Amino acid sequence: MDHFKQEMAKRTEHIESVLDIYLPKPEGLQKTVLTAMNTTVRAGGKRLRPMLMEETYKMFGGTGRVIEPFMAAIEMIHTYSLIHDDLPALDNDDYRRGQKTCHIVYGEDMAVLAGDALLNYAFETASAAFDMEDADLLRTAKAIQILARKPGIYGMIGGQTADVELEGRELSLDEIMFIHHNKTSALIEACLMIGAVLAGASDEQVHHMEQCGRKIGLAFQIQDDILDITGTEEEIGKPVGSDEKNHKTTYVTLKGIEQAKRDVELISMEAVSVLKDYDEADGYLTGLVEYLIHRTY
Amino acid sequence: MDHFKQEMAKRTEHIESVLDIYLPKPEGLQKTVLTAMNTTVRAGGKRLRPMLMEETYKMFGGTGRVIEPFMAAIEMIHTYSLIHDDLPALDNDDYRRGQKTCHIVYGEDMAVLAGDALLNYAFETASAAFDMEDADLLRTAKAIQILARKPGIYGMIGGQTADVELEGRELSLDEIMFIHHNKTSALIEACLMIGAVLAGASDEQVHHMEQCGRKIGLAFQIQDDILDITGTEEEIGKPVGSDEKNHKTTYVTLKGIEQAKRDVELISMEAVSVLKDYDEADGYLTGLVEYLIHRTY
Repeated sequence: MDHFKQEMAKRTEHIESVLDIYLPKPEGLQKTVLTAMNTTVRAGGKRLRPMLMEETYKMFGGTGRVIEPFMAAIEMIHTYSLIHDDLPALDNDDYRRGQKTCHIVYGEDMAVLAGDALLNYAFETASAAFDMEDADLLRTAKAIQILARKPGIYGMIGGQTADVELEGRELSLDEIMFIHHNKTSALIEACLMIGAVLAGASDEQVHHMEQCGRKIGLAFQIQDDILDITGTEEEIGKPVGSDEKNHKTTYVTLKGIEQAKRDVELISMEAVSVLKDYDEADGYLTGLVEYLIHRTY
Repeated sequence: MDHFKQEMAKRTEHIESVLDIYLPKPEGLQKTVLTAMNTTVRAGGKRLRPMLMEETYKMFGGTGRVIEPFMAAIEMIHTYSLIHDDLPALDNDDYRRGQKTCHIVYGEDMAVLAGDALLNYAFETASAAFDMEDADLLRTAKAIQILARKPGIYGMIGGQTADVELEGRELSLDEIMFIHHNKTSALIEACLMIGAVLAGASDEQVHHMEQCGRKIGLAFQIQDDILDITGTEEEIGKPVGSDEKNHKTTYVTLKGIEQAKRDVELISMEAVSVLKDYDEADGYLTGLVEYLIHRTY
């Protein structure tokens, strides 16, 4: 496991250097929003989405740099969604991962604009890839289509919308699955699919990656619901028991904790078995997925 | 003038039918936000941006349908920016063009999400153009790049940010020009440039259209400042005298009303003279620009 963690640290560092290149610099009359964009992206986490994207790209034989603007773009989209989710009109969170949220630091007006600017800049960054030396026009076009579809109203925003819309009442399993598939899986699907597309994978392979991303997201989200009950605040980086406190229907409240644990195992095994067909040489991506779902080491 | 108005009505109707095709239908668990997206785009105005885009496309000999998703996309971007501008955290407007604003009808949470969803869906719609029969891959790629750059942090959002940032203090002419160029001209530049690019115009011609759009936006905005003093509420569709009431520095307060009027004439003549080199056959686009700037008939 130590070897895996070392590898992960090395790859995270590489992603930070990619973000450095692609994040806009705070200057000029837009300085406040540029600073908000910049610091909020930099504040964040383990870079799992760009990591999944890059590792999938390498798994399918990709060796160029055309993947990099897309890695930055997906992290911008992930970050914008957190900035807007935290707004007083939505989750009204003052802190995220122990740090003050964007609207607390820069004001609500600037947080709305910084979120908008990040979402827009994701497409500006990714579409600039058409000008790169190693960009294949058709592959890049397909990658842009995925980048535009998966975070949108029939993907991430759709899941977020349903979550807000259905708040406060008991949910059916179908509704919970809709929210998880869209709110959580859609971006992960995008990462695996874009990595595959840009490396020249076939349509069938890209479809396999979509299915795999769907399962990873689902397993991740059920595990999240489980950890909300069985985990410690230290393990999951936020207060536990919040779902019960908010009377929130989750996968676990519907299926029971034992069944939920078995389902996580089953779904992640399915995801890993798809990957293993491709990930013979390295095994890092498979390890990453297992880490991502179990989050216990 | 009657002939021009008839022509304009006919072309507006055509644009409404294009929007009909490309706007997402309200259904499923995202129904509220889909309804908000749909009705807010439909509520709006004269469709001048898609009209400028389509007329420029035709002026450069474009005859296909690849322009249509881009026309819908620019109207989605324009509409998202209005939804977010109207939010309590920004301009806090309850009404726009006599109708209740999005957050008043659907709630602030849904208005944030509907704005996000429209911005995202603009790119989903435009990037779907790669799959159209008459789409040239390279031209479409260039059009996407423009669609992503001009509304962003170095374009429209940048101007909006500076406007919010500098609120409440006296502005220099440079600062006012920065705000106008970005907040107003950038989207108009995008319309003319995308129309030209998709029709196969040369880089030099696209650059001419960019300069032309810049002047149209500037003249439009100075005229807006003038009408805030000399116009009637009926003429401009909103209360007059608001700039003075808010102690807002405008182009007019800095240069005086007579100079401002002369500048509008000069700048619009420059814009029209660029267009006239291309717009020989028809003349509609030139008339549209004159209408857009003067708005007195």
